[in-house]
Amino acid sequence: MSEFYEVLHRRRDVRGEFSGAPVDPAALRRILGAAHAAPSVGLTQPWDFVLVSDLGLRETFAKHVHTEREIFAASLDGDRADTFARIKIEGILEASLGVVVTYDPARGAPDVLGRHAIADAGLYSVVLTIQNLWLAATAENLGVGWVSFYREPFLAELLGIPDGIRPVAWLCLGPVTELAAVPDLERHGWRERRALDGAIHHDRFTPGQPGPA
Amino acid sequence: MSEFYEVLHRRRDVRGEFSGAPVDPAALRRILGAAHAAPSVGLTQPWDFVLVSDLGLRETFAKHVHTEREIFAASLDGDRADTFARIKIEGILEASLGVVVTYDPARGAPDVLGRHAIADAGLYSVVLTIQNLWLAATAENLGVGWVSFYREPFLAELLGIPDGIRPVAWLCLGPVTELAAVPDLERHGWRERRALDGAIHHDRFTPGQPGPA
Repeated sequence: MSEFYEVLHRRRDVRGEFSGAPVDPAALRRILGAAHAAPSVGLTQPWDFVLVSDLGLRETFAKHVHTEREIFAASLDGDRADTFARIKIEGILEASLGVVVTYDPARGAPDVLGRHAIADAGLYSVVLTIQNLWLAATAENLGVGWVSFYREPFLAELLGIPDGIRPVAWLCLGPVTELAAVPDLERHGWRERRALDGAIHHDRFTPGQPGPA
Repeated sequence: MSEFYEVLHRRRDVRGEFSGAPVDPAALRRILGAAHAAPSVGLTQPWDFVLVSDLGLRETFAKHVHTEREIFAASLDGDRADTFARIKIEGILEASLGVVVTYDPARGAPDVLGRHAIADAGLYSVVLTIQNLWLAATAENLGVGWVSFYREPFLAELLGIPDGIRPVAWLCLGPVTELAAVPDLERHGWRERRALDGAIHHDRFTPGQPGPA
């Protein structure tokens, strides 16, 4: 049990520590197998994994992400803008591989068991697979960084993702020089982590728990 | 590493195997600590956990879920309806505890780093915490079952969840007599799992991969 928790707490959202060394194919297969073993609504397994190693595709995506970074930066006030300027938000070119995880709502439709009342349940399944992938990569001593500074239609067009299938994440994956002890955003003074006790409620939701808003 | 993968692949979506025995408080704390260690967009940690042990609340919720089950059943054709009739979809009363996980989009807003281009990124963070919780419970030899046959406004009203905060999951949690080797929905002939190879693409999405649609 200790090994399991060690992996879980060691996991980090990696930006600056990718070494660029190749990913061992056997490790990659175990990681994708772990992702594919995630639970899914109605056993639809509505995910797909696009492994992006092509440098041209990654450069085009990185340029787009840079533009989106500028858009967000322009929305910030002085202090926040200064803090944000110091934060690296992606390692698209430094990481060994991009893994784009997609969601196909048509898989298993129309009778998706467990989705009639909550349309987003299919999308949730895709995120469960992402966390399995992330933890398995950590167990393999690799790093993962989730990039979300992009427009979905841009990424869909770039990788030929068909209409109706939604890209949910671009994950940077690869060997790292280290996994930081403290999350980047905390280290750079962007935001502090909440205390666990502030997130726990009993039988009814209790607004106004302590911790940062 | 083998212990980590053993936990990951042993995890099941539990319906019928809850024993109702109490959850060890120290184990529960480790599980919630694991959930709280999940990654989140802009380090917002936008989740909360409502631990529902009150039997009256659970009975009211179970009744609502039963109604939603009937609604879904009525939408199915003959064969599918017969198969569905044999499938247990929740263990709300048999499990030791309900854990309702919520999403607060206002936490850290308006400057949520990583959400300006993808509004759902906050919701994704909440699902990442759920998978951490699920796996940690498995490591503790407990079972988890995600119930999604409910309407969000009903659950929000039942637990006093404030406007603007969204319930994302009702998780049944507790000791189990066993974790099934095969997912319930496969065992009951509802749906088969896809082969991993059908979910992997290289550089571009390739429609028409093999495997069940």
